[in-house]
Order: sequence, then structure tokens, then C-alpha cells
Amino acid sequence: MTWSRFKEYFYQNTELGLALDISRIPFPEDFLATKEPAMQAAFSAMAALESGAIANPDEQRMVGHYWLRRPELAPGAELRDAISGTLQRIRQFAAEVHSGAISAPDGQPFSHLLVIGIGGSALGPQLVHHALGQPGRDRMSVSFFDNTDPDGIDYALDAIGGKLAQTLVVVISKSGGTAETRNGMLEAAAAFRAAGLAPARHFVAVTGEGSQLDKVAAAEGWLARFPMWDWVGGRTSELCAVGLLPAALQGIDIDAMLAGAAAVDEVTRRPITRENPAALLALMWHFATEGRGAKDMVILPYKDRLLLFSRYLQQLVMESLGKELDLEGRVVNQGIAVYGNKGSTDQHAYVQQLREGVNNFFVTFIEVLKDRSSSGDGRGGRARAPIQVEPDVSSGDYLQGFYLGTRDALSEKDRGSISLTIDELSPRSLGMLIALYERAVGLYASLIGINAYHQPGVEAGKKAASGVIALQRKLLAALREAGAPAEGQTAEALAAQVAGSPELSFKVLEHLAANGVVKKQARTPWHSSLYRA
Amino acid sequence: MTWSRFKEYFYQNTELGLALDISRIPFPEDFLATKEPAMQAAFSAMAALESGAIANPDEQRMVGHYWLRRPELAPGAELRDAISGTLQRIRQFAAEVHSGAISAPDGQPFSHLLVIGIGGSALGPQLVHHALGQPGRDRMSVSFFDNTDPDGIDYALDAIGGKLAQTLVVVISKSGGTAETRNGMLEAAAAFRAAGLAPARHFVAVTGEGSQLDKVAAAEGWLARFPMWDWVGGRTSELCAVGLLPAALQGIDIDAMLAGAAAVDEVTRRPITRENPAALLALMWHFATEGRGAKDMVILPYKDRLLLFSRYLQQLVMESLGKELDLEGRVVNQGIAVYGNKGSTDQHAYVQQLREGVNNFFVTFIEVLKDRSSSGDGRGGRARAPIQVEPDVSSGDYLQGFYLGTRDALSEKDRGSISLTIDELSPRSLGMLIALYERAVGLYASLIGINAYHQPGVEAGKKAASGVIALQRKLLAALREAGAPAEGQTAEALAAQVAGSPELSFKVLEHLAANGVVKKQARTPWHSSLYRA
Repeated sequence: MTWSRFKEYFYQNTELGLALDISRIPFPEDFLATKEPAMQAAFSAMAALESGAIANPDEQRMVGHYWLRRPELAPGAELRDAISGTLQRIRQFAAEVHSGAISAPDGQPFSHLLVIGIGGSALGPQLVHHALGQPGRDRMSVSFFDNTDPDGIDYALDAIGGKLAQTLVVVISKSGGTAETRNGMLEAAAAFRAAGLAPARHFVAVTGEGSQLDKVAAAEGWLARFPMWDWVGGRTSELCAVGLLPAALQGIDIDAMLAGAAAVDEVTRRPITRENPAALLALMWHFATEGRGAKDMVILPYKDRLLLFSRYLQQLVMESLGKELDLEGRVVNQGIAVYGNKGSTDQHAYVQQLREGVNNFFVTFIEVLKDRSSSGDGRGGRARAPIQVEPDVSSGDYLQGFYLGTRDALSEKDRGSISLTIDELSPRSLGMLIALYERAVGLYASLIGINAYHQPGVEAGKKAASGVIALQRKLLAALREAGAPAEGQTAEALAAQVAGSPELSFKVLEHLAANGVVKKQARTPWHSSLYRA
Repeated sequence: MTWSRFKEYFYQNTELGLALDISRIPFPEDFLATKEPAMQAAFSAMAALESGAIANPDEQRMVGHYWLRRPELAPGAELRDAISGTLQRIRQFAAEVHSGAISAPDGQPFSHLLVIGIGGSALGPQLVHHALGQPGRDRMSVSFFDNTDPDGIDYALDAIGGKLAQTLVVVISKSGGTAETRNGMLEAAAAFRAAGLAPARHFVAVTGEGSQLDKVAAAEGWLARFPMWDWVGGRTSELCAVGLLPAALQGIDIDAMLAGAAAVDEVTRRPITRENPAALLALMWHFATEGRGAKDMVILPYKDRLLLFSRYLQQLVMESLGKELDLEGRVVNQGIAVYGNKGSTDQHAYVQQLREGVNNFFVTFIEVLKDRSSSGDGRGGRARAPIQVEPDVSSGDYLQGFYLGTRDALSEKDRGSISLTIDELSPRSLGMLIALYERAVGLYASLIGINAYHQPGVEAGKKAASGVIALQRKLLAALREAGAPAEGQTAEALAAQVAGSPELSFKVLEHLAANGVVKKQARTPWHSSLYRA
């Protein structure tokens, strides 16, 4: 019974080295037929998007991440040339850095790469760096600033240590105005200056043409500038300069990544549901979550190098699908929550709850058939002789055993799962995975009738943050004006003085006090404490 | 209104440097009073546990992680001496490694530490390593094997590179029979031997006395053995040898960690709900999830070093609370799903969904007031002069701004949140956080009437995995017996021959074929492919 259902629905594409098993999502036999009209409509919407329709109506933008790996599909010669030309410039720039034609100011080769970005400008590069890196054999070692935490910045700078003089910095921000990235850039520049180094001779910008960052980079004469386009969203930007430049600098075969994505695009573009793994994924999400996010998506790749793929998908899925309104403007509060790290490690963390606890999820297992030295990037991974941990059994056999065992343990308790299998982990297959999920998300968005390509909910938090920063300035001004410590300079009184929220004023003052910016005279009760400049 | 509610419920303990704001969980005014009898029962249950009652009835064990930081509370001199003596041996061993009294076989100091463990034997050490490490100034650099992925093992070995001869290895497994850890140990030993090094002169065991691992370590004459006790569960083992030995070797102040945990234990032991932050947390979880896991717990620490705290809590909460049966044996399918990484980074990944999408979560923000060089471990963190990214504004001010902005953006849309604030991140405050959540989980388990100290659901997956490994052996034997490639050696036929599941046989054969162990002759349809030894 299980076996016949497995055989019935198993999707395998030996050319791609990709397989998908949906048999353990308990959809009824007529489900695919029932959903076929909606699926066909989704294929049509996707075809329109790929040919340059305005797929992001709020922002009046095209959505063109599929063109990045097949520029000839882009509408117009200008776009095609921009894509191909940028790709060629990335290859060229990386080759010149590797050859030493572009070198550090002291004449040494650039041996370390610091990437500064956040969200879509960090998660993809981090995923690729970890998934495809070859410690000790990469062309450059790589680290990241992906936040505005000064302590995290110090941590990364300490790890770079004495290599700062040989460090190339890539600053990535589409708008050029992302505060976290701007702050990271300023912190990095300060560290370079403190070490007697000129930032402009180390820095490269990846940003929208004409953005604030672009202007700074041009004015200061940075080493290079690469474009980001308004038709590529942050969460689907891994295969433009955002992801390709850091990967190429690290020494990863970016053409193989692009080829893998293009190959999956071709397969998943076909409007034949049963032969389309992206469509099957989207339909399974729909069934498992009742088309309304009723269950969480737990991502369990059984491969250490794919640890960050779960986080990458968390962004891709949740930012694309988590929407208040549908395309008709109705309140729908859509989305699917995504979490997970890696198997079998996570079995020792929360499979207890998955099997026995609240049944509010479905699992996607990701299996990689080839166990060892599978980077496949032609750089001669240092293959270790496989050892047997028991007669006829390797560590990799155990890894598969735990995946299959956990899958069965969940099935026994009616917890559904999808299994996605790739032959090996390589630049090509990682490109495939990225393209597969990009399309699954796009198709699913059509099924539930939402716009997957904007993120209106992000603005509110940014705007509120600006308000907090403005409040801080007012509070500091008020404290300076007051001069000597005055009775009554409580958070509440200061808030009233600057017409701000007492709660936010209290929080801001406590933070300033902890960092020596203002002084605090603690009193009981806590809200009678006094602050001064 | 907001401010008066904030003032009403704000918990602040200036001695600990800890504050808790529950005002944005929308419980009604009478909620705490209503739950007071249940909370008092939970305090009583916890008191019984702390005095040595059998708190894990299935396994007939005591639950004593609280004794680790206050040995005088342990029942009986034997336990007290075991705790204190082990702690003393950890300090001594780390000091001898640092001084070179215990050195690598080549006479060099051990400069690198490889920790091999999984689940409770890895997450705590990984959390502490990252949260409290000082890159470039730690006494030893540290890496981990936390899975049975051979490629992940190769990756870690490649990163260790030429330092293997100066690498100390700590193998951690309570039962001594955890397959992932056993495999990691065998892989590490093989790598040492391949480099001409004797594993026993590099290896240290942390395990239950008399376990299989303990016996191997004794027989082979490993450098040292440290005990794990049956009254310490894996997910609460950070403050026994499991966590303390790696931390001490790295140079982290383990006494400060223990003191922080002890201080929080003392505060959270008091049965006065309004003055007990662990009790308040447990009650908020109960309200937010309706006492049945109806919402997910999203953990957002605004501090890069706390990135892994979310994963640590994922294990602590989900493995403790995710239970099929309550203490009366009724089917309850309890638990709370936990996910999150760090802010403000995650704002660029999924705050879009949190604000606008499916309302199936509550957030816990973790705020750290002090921005920079806050490790506070007396090792002279390299403080950088704070820079201003705008007049009167630092990167850290932005970090707080994003936290407060996101919190407001969620409140506006009726998404509830808890805020936990610590003065600084240090060994002491990390010990505090660990103790705070350990107790909150214990109290919550009482509120919902489940056993937080066992994990019966984990066994099924392990057992099924053993079945898969046994099936693999049978399939290999059948293939070898068959000799030359015979028609009809499909997965289905081979499964029938060994009386195994056809689906599992197919999966196992595909994996063996990808790794060169068996040969595959591909045919169409896929299930008619033939395999041979």
C-alpha cells in the first residue's frame, strides 16, 4: 500500500539528479485533479511574469530573477546585456583578484573577504559560502557583518585579526539605505582607518545604480561597483551580483550554479503538474496547510552543509507568503511558518515534540545521496577514504538510516512529510534547489491569490525604529539642556518634556545609561530613577 | 494605558541585571490570580524535585541539574562530593592544558579543541563557545562534530587542517552509545591515525561511569574521563562536565556561569509569582498558547552572540514539553514549537509574516543593554572606541531602535510579545539565562501536567534507524550471494528476498549506488532498475 502510493507519486529526474517523494502527505487520490485548474492558472501567471508582466503591482515592478540564469528570456536587449555584462564583469573581477592584478594596497593579494549585508543581501551569500566552501582550499576566506550589533561587528573584526590589510570588503544593499548595512560599512571603514588603511582601496559596492551607496562608492573611488536591479527582489537575489560576486571571489563555480538553476527552471516551467516538482511542492504545501498556513513547514536537510538552507527558505517562504491582503484586497493573513536546522542533529533537539507533541507541522526532508567530497566544483576536494564504523556500514549509512527511521517514526503517528533527494551537493545542485523553491513559492502564491513579490509589512518596523532614534536625540537634547542633575528627571518626566512615549523613553534611557552616554541614579521604585547627560 | 500596564507588570532585578516585561501579552487583569493555585502547585512540585524526589517517574530518576550550581542542595554527601570534585577536576585539567603540563604528544601545547557530541551534548557547548568566545584571544580555538554526516566531518577536519597534532578531542555521550557520537569518534580516530598520531593521547571522554565509551576510554588509556550522571538530562547538562569542560578549556570563566545560574535559581525558587521571572514566563506561555501549544514561540535575541540561544531553547522547550501523554496517561499532544535566530537580522527575513501573516506565534525579544566588549570575563576584551553612525547615534542605538520598532509594529497588529532584558552578555548572565529557562520549562510542565524530564518519542526513530541499517546488511548479503548481475535484481525483488520494505530497500540501494558500494543499472521505469554488488 505505502509502496504502491510511493511508486504512483514518485518524481525522479535522473538528468537533474533530483527526486521528490510526496507520498507521505496524506492527500486523497483526487486531490491533484481537483487542483488542476488552479495549477494551470498559476502556470499562466508565472509565464506572464517570466515574459515581463508587472508581477509586483504595488511597486509597479517586473519580477525577473528567472532571467538571471537565462538572459535571453529577459524582455529587451538592454536587460539582456545588463545581465550578461555584469556576469562577465564578476568573472573578470574575481579572476583579477585571484591573479593579484587587483591587490591590496600593500601589494599583497587579497586573501580575505568581508561581506556586509543583511536579509536578502546576506542569507544567500552565507548559504553558498557554507554549503560550497572548502576550508583551507578556498581562494579567499570569508566573513560577514549581517546586523547592526556593534559587539557582533567586533567579534567578526577580531576573527579577521591581522588580515585586515589583505581584506576585500563587499558592501551589498539594493536601496543603499539599509541602516544595518550602512552602519556596518561605517564600522568597517573606521576599523580600516584605525589600522592606517584607506577603506576606498578595499571596498566594493553592490547596489542599485544611483543609490546613496552607489554615490558614496563613486565619490570615494571604491575598487568597483556592481549593479542590483529593481526587478530582482532581495530574497531572490542570490544569482545576481549579490550572491555571485562573493561566491566567485571564494572560488566557487558560479556558472555551474547558474546552469543548475536554469536546468530546474526549464523543467519547472512546463505546465504538466505531475512532471513538475515545483508544482508538486506547492500543491503539497497547499494540502498540508489547508491553503492558509495551518501548519508549520519544518525543513530537515540531512547534510551539514545545508544547515543554512532552512534559514534561507525561512526568508524566501515567509517574506513571500506572509501577507495580510490577497490580490483582491481581502484580509487573509496568509503565510507558512518555516523552521529547522539539520538532521540528524535536530532529532536530538525536537523530534520528540514532532512525533508526540502538538501536530502543527509537516516536514520536508532533504536527502543527499553522495556522502563524501561531493562539492563537485573541479577543485579537487580532499577525499578521505571512507571508513566503516561497523562491518559494511559507514557514517553516511547511519545518516541515511536516521533520516529514514525518523520519517517512519513520524508517519506512524500520522505526521506528514515530503522527501526531496539530490544526487550530490555541488554548485549545480545548490542552484537547482534555489530555483526549485523560488518557483514553488511563486506557484503557491498564485494558488492562494497573493502577491509574493512585495513586503509591505517591513516598513512599519523600520519607520517605528526611526521614531525611536528621533526620540533618543530629543531625550539627549533635553538632558543636555537641563545640565546638572535635576530632581524630577525621571523617564516619565523626560518623555512628557519631549512629547514621547514614556515606555520607549524609559527603554532608550536605560540603554544609554548602560553604555555611559547618560548617567542614571537608581531609585525605588524603578520608575523614579533619575537620568542626566 | 500601555505605560500603566507596563509599570504594573514590569519585573526588574537590579542585583541580577535582569528585567522582564510581560505587558504586551494580552492577559486579562485577573489572569495571574486565576492561575495562582496552579502556580503554587508548580512551586511545590519543583521544591520536591529539588530535594531529590523521583521527578522522572518513567525512568525512576531524580532530576538534579539545579544541584550543579549549588552542590549543598544535593541529597547526600556522595552526590555533593561528586559535583564538587568533578568541578575541581575540570578546573585542574583545563589549567594543566593551558600551562602545558598536559601537552600534545609532540610536546607542543594543545591549541585546538574538537568537541564530539550531539543534541544536549553539543548545543550547550556550541552556544557557550559562540556567545562567550574571544576570537584571537581564547585559550584554545574550538570546533565541533555534531552529526554523523561524513562530509560535515571532512569539513571540520579540513578547517582544523595542520593543527591536528595539537588538537585535544573531547567526546561527550551520556549513554556512550549514541551512534552519531560514536561514529564521529571513530572518524576522528581514523583521521588521527592517518596523520600518524595516536588518538588515545589526544582524547578525553565525558560519559556515564561504566558506559561503553567509558570502557573504551579506560582500556585505551585516554587522557582523562569525566562523569555524566543519570540525574542530569542532556538538555539541562550545560552546567555539568558536558558544558563546563569545553568552556574551561576555551578559557571561559565557568565559576561565573555557575554563579549566575545559582543566583537565578535562588530568585526563581521563591514561591511569590509576581517576583519570580521564571513563573511569569511560564504563565505567559500558558496564556499565549492556551496551555496547549496553540502558538509558536519565536525567540529574537538582539545580540549576534545569542544566535544559538534560539536553537538551545528549541531543544530545551520542545524536547521537554512536546509530549503525547500527561502525567495521568491521557493523550494530550502537548508542546510549544520554538524557532528564531536573531534580531534585527530576522526582521529582513520573516517579520513581514509576523506582522501581516498568519497569527500563530508570540515573540520573546531578548535585549542586552551594554553594546560593546561586554564579555566581562576578566580577559580584557579588546574594546573598540564606539563610533557614531549619525550625530549622537551608534550602531547599538540602531540595534535597540529596531528591536523597539519591531515590537511596536507587532503590537499594532495585536501580535503579543515578551521582552527579557539583561544588562550585559557575560558568563554570569548566560548562566542566568540558562537557569531562568530551565525553571520556566519545569514550572510550565507542572501547569500543564506533563513529565518534562523524559523523551519517549525519540526511541522510535532510533529503533527504526537500526532497522534500516540491518536491512542494508541483508541487502548487501543478498547481492553478494547473487554474484554476477542477474535479471530481476530490482529493489522490489531484493526486498522480497530479504523480507524487507520495498520502499526502504529502494532508498537504501540508491544511497549505496551513489557511493560506489553497489552498482546500479538504470532502467525505465525507475523501479525496474537493477542493482548488483
